Amino acid sequence: MKKFAAVAIRYQDQHVEIIDQRALPDNQVWLAAKTPDDMVDYIATLAVRGAPLIGVAAALSLASYAETGASAADIRAAAQRLNDARPTAVNLNWAIQKILATDLSREAVVNAAEAIYDYEIDTCEKMADHGAALITEPETVLTHCNTGSLATPGLGTALGVIIRAHQQGKIKHVYVDETRPLLQGGRLTTWELDRYKIPYSLICDNMAASLMRAGKIDRVFVGSDRIAMNGDFANKIGTYGVAVLAKEHGVKFHTVAPVSTVDQQCANGDAIPIEQRKPEEVRGVNGSFGSVRWAPKECEVYNPAFDVTPVDYVTSIVLELGNVPRADLKGGKLSELLR
Amino acid sequence: MKKFAAVAIRYQDQHVEIIDQRALPDNQVWLAAKTPDDMVDYIATLAVRGAPLIGVAAALSLASYAETGASAADIRAAAQRLNDARPTAVNLNWAIQKILATDLSREAVVNAAEAIYDYEIDTCEKMADHGAALITEPETVLTHCNTGSLATPGLGTALGVIIRAHQQGKIKHVYVDETRPLLQGGRLTTWELDRYKIPYSLICDNMAASLMRAGKIDRVFVGSDRIAMNGDFANKIGTYGVAVLAKEHGVKFHTVAPVSTVDQQCANGDAIPIEQRKPEEVRGVNGSFGSVRWAPKECEVYNPAFDVTPVDYVTSIVLELGNVPRADLKGGKLSELLR
Repeated sequence: MKKFAAVAIRYQDQHVEIIDQRALPDNQVWLAAKTPDDMVDYIATLAVRGAPLIGVAAALSLASYAETGASAADIRAAAQRLNDARPTAVNLNWAIQKILATDLSREAVVNAAEAIYDYEIDTCEKMADHGAALITEPETVLTHCNTGSLATPGLGTALGVIIRAHQQGKIKHVYVDETRPLLQGGRLTTWELDRYKIPYSLICDNMAASLMRAGKIDRVFVGSDRIAMNGDFANKIGTYGVAVLAKEHGVKFHTVAPVSTVDQQCANGDAIPIEQRKPEEVRGVNGSFGSVRWAPKECEVYNPAFDVTPVDYVTSIVLELGNVPRADLKGGKLSELLR
Repeated sequence: MKKFAAVAIRYQDQHVEIIDQRALPDNQVWLAAKTPDDMVDYIATLAVRGAPLIGVAAALSLASYAETGASAADIRAAAQRLNDARPTAVNLNWAIQKILATDLSREAVVNAAEAIYDYEIDTCEKMADHGAALITEPETVLTHCNTGSLATPGLGTALGVIIRAHQQGKIKHVYVDETRPLLQGGRLTTWELDRYKIPYSLICDNMAASLMRAGKIDRVFVGSDRIAMNGDFANKIGTYGVAVLAKEHGVKFHTVAPVSTVDQQCANGDAIPIEQRKPEEVRGVNGSFGSVRWAPKECEVYNPAFDVTPVDYVTSIVLELGNVPRADLKGGKLSELLR
């Protein structure tokens, strides 16, 4: 396998390594996935996360496994365990199916994984261009969760658009939802915006409403974990609430994702499985930054990791194939594009 | 001054004491306000909080000061410092004006403070009755922030309604917004619901949208820090977003507050000052439960403590005088009631 080094994933010394996203922004720690099961653990515990990135990470860990001479049966079994590591993002399954569609020889697995890696970088560039083209005058934008170089092997999806638009002088300010419970906005998007020196303000998720009412947000860009064929999509919990607010205030709302995020088996949002996570995440916070609990120890919690935003709230979906407005989504454009 | 003991405030051994709300739910610590300036500090640091309760706490600390033989000039000066401790909740100013309207003799100040304390308990009972009467069949309700016996000297405002409705067998379940950044829902409302054995689930603020979409919320009850004469009101940050979601999903939305929360000087929500708080609150959390920061150390933050919900989103305001529906609010009913 060839060497490579992205912001969040790299291959060197015969191992795929991922930056431990649980340790950001204060510490940059690289973890080696010596086996596919290491990667299963990293994906399940969110050391590596982001819909496109976990697909890439899974594929590369299988390629690295193939490099050690693993049998087709072993690769197939490892692929199954990787596939089960998280249920909502379809990119994971998409990438694994690409691997399993080969003859599982060492060379074929490596080639397929490298192609997935290259594809996700290339699509980031195209999405960034298509998304940035939507902005004509400088705007203030809002984003939710993390969708940059920590969610893809490239520039990012929604954050890639914001970075590209900023390079083109079209971003005045970015408001960043902290994105409870796991704080990917507060920990990761802030870190990425600092790297690019893009001006931003961190907010709690419940502050976006008053910003929109005050006319301070021109546009929202978010990513997606799974897009249904009618344009409904699943994304990080809280996305749907932002979409409702955007509609109420006449703010444009876009989701940005590669075609690998579109689930052709999924007719609409009701068919998307939603991962429920542990109550501890809501009773407090914990990470490399520390661990505290403020709620009663045993209190009952409702903790879905994702929600579904119906296409009616979507101004457009930005794919690497171009910008697809709501009317086209509702007219069946995704089927047409994927034919 | 007579002895008394509420959940959050008490008078004994010549001192007003407040339960330190920063230490809940794990620890119950009482703090004595030996001077009005102690109380200024407790109010500013949210050791005591909740719009009606801080008015009561300020009044009682002045009464206790009067008991020590403080001069009228000293009482007036202390009243000014108390008034400035927090800017948004009008009840603080309302209570202090009641004290300052007396001749500032020891007896008059004590009588006025006791009357304010009794008034806020009595209004809680009336609001609870009026609010609970809105519910006919058992319902699942959502609430934001804390509005119970930790926000008033009595049963509470919005939470008082929920407690009363539960006593009447009309509450199936309560969803509790954690209420970032200071987590009054996660720390305090949970603690109060546990005391009453009312079934609830704690959620992050950004989860309410998907619950409403799933049809799991019948009604929202929130408190208020200041009500304008047209029915617009300020409340804990995040309230406005919940109101927008409620409207979008056809969920009834009520604010519950005593008349002491209505600001007759305030024609509409635009005139309500909004307190901005420190960036550290958003960069992490800190309290007696511990202190962690997950965001970049110096990152810019937008941190308003309150937002304003326009009357158009309000199904009704529940006062001790009764339930006032939106149409009546817009027709000038508050002026009529307060005449």
